[in-house]
Amino acid sequence: MKTLPKLKTINDPIYGFITVPSKLVFYLMEHKYFQRLRRISQMGFSYIVYPGAHHTRFHHALGAMFLMQKAVQVLKSKGVAISAKEEEALYVAILLHDIGHGPFSHAMEHSIVENVSHEQISLLFMKLLNQKFNKQLTLAIEIFKDQHPRKFLHQLVSGQLDMDRLDYLKRDSFYTGVPEGTVNAQRLIAMLNVKNDALVVEEKGIYSVENFLVARRLMYWQVYLHKTGIVAEQLLVRVLKRAKQLTAQGVDLPASKGLNFFLKNTINLNDFSEEVLDTFSKLDDYDIISAMKMWVNNDDFVLKNLSKMLLNRDLLKIKVKSKVFPQHKIKEKRKQLADTFNITLEEASYFVFTGKLENQAYSMEKDTINLLKKNGKIIEVAKASDQLNLEALSTSVVKYYLCYPKNNKDSYRG
Amino acid sequence: MKTLPKLKTINDPIYGFITVPSKLVFYLMEHKYFQRLRRISQMGFSYIVYPGAHHTRFHHALGAMFLMQKAVQVLKSKGVAISAKEEEALYVAILLHDIGHGPFSHAMEHSIVENVSHEQISLLFMKLLNQKFNKQLTLAIEIFKDQHPRKFLHQLVSGQLDMDRLDYLKRDSFYTGVPEGTVNAQRLIAMLNVKNDALVVEEKGIYSVENFLVARRLMYWQVYLHKTGIVAEQLLVRVLKRAKQLTAQGVDLPASKGLNFFLKNTINLNDFSEEVLDTFSKLDDYDIISAMKMWVNNDDFVLKNLSKMLLNRDLLKIKVKSKVFPQHKIKEKRKQLADTFNITLEEASYFVFTGKLENQAYSMEKDTINLLKKNGKIIEVAKASDQLNLEALSTSVVKYYLCYPKNNKDSYRG
Amino acid sequence: MKTLPKLKTINDPIYGFITVPSKLVFYLMEHKYFQRLRRISQMGFSYIVYPGAHHTRFHHALGAMFLMQKAVQVLKSKGVAISAKEEEALYVAILLHDIGHGPFSHAMEHSIVENVSHEQISLLFMKLLNQKFNKQLTLAIEIFKDQHPRKFLHQLVSGQLDMDRLDYLKRDSFYTGVPEGTVNAQRLIAMLNVKNDALVVEEKGIYSVENFLVARRLMYWQVYLHKTGIVAEQLLVRVLKRAKQLTAQGVDLPASKGLNFFLKNTINLNDFSEEVLDTFSKLDDYDIISAMKMWVNNDDFVLKNLSKMLLNRDLLKIKVKSKVFPQHKIKEKRKQLADTFNITLEEASYFVFTGKLENQAYSMEKDTINLLKKNGKIIEVAKASDQLNLEALSTSVVKYYLCYPKNNKDSYRG
Amino acid sequence: MKTLPKLKTINDPIYGFITVPSKLVFYLMEHKYFQRLRRISQMGFSYIVYPGAHHTRFHHALGAMFLMQKAVQVLKSKGVAISAKEEEALYVAILLHDIGHGPFSHAMEHSIVENVSHEQISLLFMKLLNQKFNKQLTLAIEIFKDQHPRKFLHQLVSGQLDMDRLDYLKRDSFYTGVPEGTVNAQRLIAMLNVKNDALVVEEKGIYSVENFLVARRLMYWQVYLHKTGIVAEQLLVRVLKRAKQLTAQGVDLPASKGLNFFLKNTINLNDFSEEVLDTFSKLDDYDIISAMKMWVNNDDFVLKNLSKMLLNRDLLKIKVKSKVFPQHKIKEKRKQLADTFNITLEEASYFVFTGKLENQAYSMEKDTINLLKKNGKIIEVAKASDQLNLEALSTSVVKYYLCYPKNNKDSYRG
Repeated sequence: MKTLPKLKTINDPIYGFITVPSKLVFYLMEHKYFQRLRRISQMGFSYIVYPGAHHTRFHHALGAMFLMQKAVQVLKSKGVAISAKEEEALYVAILLHDIGHGPFSHAMEHSIVENVSHEQISLLFMKLLNQKFNKQLTLAIEIFKDQHPRKFLHQLVSGQLDMDRLDYLKRDSFYTGVPEGTVNAQRLIAMLNVKNDALVVEEKGIYSVENFLVARRLMYWQVYLHKTGIVAEQLLVRVLKRAKQLTAQGVDLPASKGLNFFLKNTINLNDFSEEVLDTFSKLDDYDIISAMKMWVNNDDFVLKNLSKMLLNRDLLKIKVKSKVFPQHKIKEKRKQLADTFNITLEEASYFVFTGKLENQAYSMEKDTINLLKKNGKIIEVAKASDQLNLEALSTSVVKYYLCYPKNNKDSYRG
Repeated sequence: MKTLPKLKTINDPIYGFITVPSKLVFYLMEHKYFQRLRRISQMGFSYIVYPGAHHTRFHHALGAMFLMQKAVQVLKSKGVAISAKEEEALYVAILLHDIGHGPFSHAMEHSIVENVSHEQISLLFMKLLNQKFNKQLTLAIEIFKDQHPRKFLHQLVSGQLDMDRLDYLKRDSFYTGVPEGTVNAQRLIAMLNVKNDALVVEEKGIYSVENFLVARRLMYWQVYLHKTGIVAEQLLVRVLKRAKQLTAQGVDLPASKGLNFFLKNTINLNDFSEEVLDTFSKLDDYDIISAMKMWVNNDDFVLKNLSKMLLNRDLLKIKVKSKVFPQHKIKEKRKQLADTFNITLEEASYFVFTGKLENQAYSMEKDTINLLKKNGKIIEVAKASDQLNLEALSTSVVKYYLCYPKNNKDSYRG
Repeated sequence: MKTLPKLKTINDPIYGFITVPSKLVFYLMEHKYFQRLRRISQMGFSYIVYPGAHHTRFHHALGAMFLMQKAVQVLKSKGVAISAKEEEALYVAILLHDIGHGPFSHAMEHSIVENVSHEQISLLFMKLLNQKFNKQLTLAIEIFKDQHPRKFLHQLVSGQLDMDRLDYLKRDSFYTGVPEGTVNAQRLIAMLNVKNDALVVEEKGIYSVENFLVARRLMYWQVYLHKTGIVAEQLLVRVLKRAKQLTAQGVDLPASKGLNFFLKNTINLNDFSEEVLDTFSKLDDYDIISAMKMWVNNDDFVLKNLSKMLLNRDLLKIKVKSKVFPQHKIKEKRKQLADTFNITLEEASYFVFTGKLENQAYSMEKDTINLLKKNGKIIEVAKASDQLNLEALSTSVVKYYLCYPKNNKDSYRG
Repeated sequence: MKTLPKLKTINDPIYGFITVPSKLVFYLMEHKYFQRLRRISQMGFSYIVYPGAHHTRFHHALGAMFLMQKAVQVLKSKGVAISAKEEEALYVAILLHDIGHGPFSHAMEHSIVENVSHEQISLLFMKLLNQKFNKQLTLAIEIFKDQHPRKFLHQLVSGQLDMDRLDYLKRDSFYTGVPEGTVNAQRLIAMLNVKNDALVVEEKGIYSVENFLVARRLMYWQVYLHKTGIVAEQLLVRVLKRAKQLTAQGVDLPASKGLNFFLKNTINLNDFSEEVLDTFSKLDDYDIISAMKMWVNNDDFVLKNLSKMLLNRDLLKIKVKSKVFPQHKIKEKRKQLADTFNITLEEASYFVFTGKLENQAYSMEKDTINLLKKNGKIIEVAKASDQLNLEALSTSVVKYYLCYPKNNKDSYRG
């Protein structure tokens, strides 16, 4: 039997040192499917607004695993039985929870593939790795799919207060330089407990939970849904949409082999054979950026200009309102653009478009955060909060945006 | 003319370096009335719960002045006219805003003096210093008293978003090790502006304001009103009440000269002659702790035991509820204690008592936080928040506590 | 059997949460001898320069215990056998290592007592507590005294790289706001190992060790031996010396009972009966400051003025040089002062005096830091460093200071 | 005249907010040549060891400009005359000092181009931008080239204590999570002054300077020259060398247009026409990674395997020693590899190779750090340090490394 290789602690600016808890975890981390996450930006194009935000899915996965180790420690110290197998399965499940992310994280879910979520692809990867690793991932998969009878195991991986969220809020707040979006993961974890196989928070943790929900809301509106970030993400989606459209029309666009495959084929969940999955595993941020760098020289007005905008950070303007933008205003702007550049209205619609932003700070539909009172009773957090109207937080906030070109483009540049 | 002495930057773990902006400020800082703040704990007895929280009023005053410098910079860069005189007056006003605090900050307002607030005493000190400094504080006093026509000057010193609050939340969160209570003072200040001579926050700062209000609420319930801290503060108030009572009965309690004066005399605002003020300026945390160290040997059961409890951190128990504790329960506990130790019921009431905790995260009564919309209109923040029900935050939360002795006191100690 | 009371984690701004590892440790922490450390400033009068530095011996002791828990974890994970009894003894020993500190930490060792070090008094306290706690501290005492055969146990408590130093450097750097003085305690601990029952550092940790030594040197010269801090400490020593002198002459100085005892009696190690020790346990920073607050009204010119200087931070001037100050210069300044204020030359010597500062960043005499090479050999760090001349760091640096009064004292104040 | 667009402050996790000081700076930042730096990793392949280290040249350039603003503020407050034109020139020069970096920063200087340093290319870019921006960069260029009579202007941009170094040490230490490598940029800048038009540090800053030099040394050996990082960098250099070799042999390798140009042509400084420079400006990390992603399918054993190693982080082994590795050992390993895989010895040399690491923490040859004594005299820091033997730091440390393949490659993976 091989001994665990030496590199087993990893420096992390947030937690100090992250220790790899087992050989299985180590070899999963070494696998090229996991190493690929080093090339997938955690926050997509947010670095266009927050230049510090270049951290990766790889790093986030390690961070979430670190927090899982802390959670296991805390729960065990409170007498919650967690077997060695369950423990390792938790580490594996959280490590791989995002392995299915495509380039630039969320932007790809509806452009590269057709309505396939990254969680679904994560599961496909886990199953494939399970074959390669002699069924050692079976329990982790069960937990990930929420098919394990002890519900809290799944909740630690995916739930209202899972290790994924705790890490990404902390990490994204750290790397963007938005310290007020931070959560005290350590304190929240210290207050976790298990009651009837479900995750609960000790009652005195209520202020920490409130703070977590409000910090999350702040991160959404101030960071994840930042106006400029939205423009960048929408441009990216449109670049790919246009590229697929041109490809369908028979244009041969330069692109990496992997990207080429997904431009040429419409892939939904059923199409994901092992071969398709392996092709998917070749895709990362670098394929997209490199393709755009070639496309800036393309003849197509749309593809060329969208690519240029993103690469040179010379973006569209954006307005955000709480009401829908009137159709006539959009049409007018499209018409004007079409006239100026002698393009079709359909082509103009790539530069003038509207959309919807939505966020719900706390969802009470699927899963709630439950507090454990001293008398052993359970109470839902929105009911326990004396003052901070958490039910308000559970209503969706919807906003609308309109993107359109700047005037006098480039006129001011050298 | 003297040049500014060399010590003009001060190390601060939070802001890095604090620079003294003028000679007047420097000499005020050097004055013994201000130096005294080095001996007054910013958070009273909170260090009994949070052992890191030994920072002082002195340090907080400097921090608030640092933030004021940032605010002046920001406002000026936005075209708000602030004259050199007004600027210095702002620094003086914020530097001295807490100079009237007595020992252990808030605990003293109703025990050492009779219903005299620290703000009133701060004003008395400012007036006295104004005499000593050739009327150089006149404008600062005007601002402090809110008698200056440009209202925002006062709001920067004392308002919903003043430099005092921004610093104390940041500083208290830092020193207690409750990072989720932090506020991003830098961002909030960057979003300040002035409209019609009143302070406003630019509209896009709404999430920062929400976060500020929720962080403040968290700090109140988790830190300032922490159960154990409440016990300590209440014990302190009772130690002094008992000491005054005994003194009134003719007992000659050992105490410093300054403390002795306030034990012997009932002082309300009208009694504050220059001499009384000077005597008050001799009082700080050290007088109280030293007196208690002597009082542990006193014959009076109450004084002796309350003092011992505080010094050895062997406190009363406390329960907190949202309902009033029934009178009969309190009486019963008092009776039991009186019987056990052969003391009167009145004496027992020093160890068994109830009280009320109240906090309002955002008060809409006196002063509101107003947002400046892009169209130049003003909107109150509670009305602008789309989701976080800020009006809920403006209702007072009330809780009740009951304090009573542990059983088997000391039985477990060596 | 009692269960461990609930308060078992403590907030720490540096480490997040500190967990109390056992009941014995908990009850020792609760003991009034330990609680007293809350009233003893970790850095003496350094807060006069660094206003953030009000942290206490209490907090440092907890921090060092936290690091000890980390060290035990690391060593065990590397296969070093540490029994449960040894583990607890390590926690007890590090928790109590500073329990013998007097008011204002080091300043008291040669003024309150006669050449009794705080380590000696710590040992006396440990022995007394051992009686009160049914001999449960025996092993801890053995380790503290370096009488345990497994030398590394003592080295973790007191050695070149002990948990005491790691915590105080980190903590003092944090609270003073001198971040460049920080050490990476986590990394240093992660590289510890044990060879032949002695503590070693893995070879690749050499840069961390170098950094630790240089950071320590920086903290000494920039913080601990800061000019203004030296003045304050020397004034404090002289205040007490003068108070003892006056007491010996029959003057009855106001002072707390505890302080009074040490002013009246000359106490060396042999005099430390249990009763004396208990009296000593009553002493803390509050006795000293309170006494000085009374002494500012004393008739004695020296006592009164020294006290005033310290309380109002209106200190002597100081010059620091690498050469001895000429005697005639000192005499001249004393003469001048004596003439001005009509005091004796001996009295003037309290205000004009010289002294020596000395620091050795790395001492090779008693104990060295040893590296464990990959081939299993041991090499002393000063020999292993390729470039940073560590032998230079082991030579003592000596500087001399001269303190003397400002001119025109008080003339510039309001 | 256009007003400065709204985006003028940028979030930075290290400094909080960075403000853009002028329109010229803003438009330079907006230029695609500068935006390109968003796609060039500051630390090359170091993220393979430190997963947090994905920050970019773009971010570093902004950080260095922020520090320059602080330095200008400090120097002006000390009476150093700096005109508005000089001030802006300093910002421009520091902003653009690294604009000539190629993909993966340093690795490219001897593979993409032939012995052309990034500074030389930065200068070419500045000159080109100067044309595009109506000669507004002339003074900045003069300062950058050290042709301005006031030497300190250049020293702030490029010298022993320039803003570049201060930012990269701070930033790299932050993003790698090696806090002990941090420098206190704020304190160092606060101690800067100018004497005879040259930069000096006030004498009391000596400990900060020492700390800076030692921290820099630590960062070199622990981070920049980390063994695993060296392997990655050397693999990258060899990938490109091989690609050039194959291209020269007529093999048509897939690559972006920009990369293709540099593979086909040998470019030295004289070849850098405006056209070549523009082609160079198209190159960034994405070209290299994308090319390697294609090359993993190439027929060439060397190109394919080197690319795979880097992408999947399945690197060569490395040994580091202070002595040269014997030639026969290297030959032996090459022979063995050649035999195993049936490749030539020349091909094997891509996998078995040796090299030299060198670092000098403080160079006294070109430029020294000078201290300004209180008496106005200048002393070189290595002579002023009483204990830390800085002359030792100025000797070069040389180490040698040997890279070679792992055994049983891939055998343990799923």
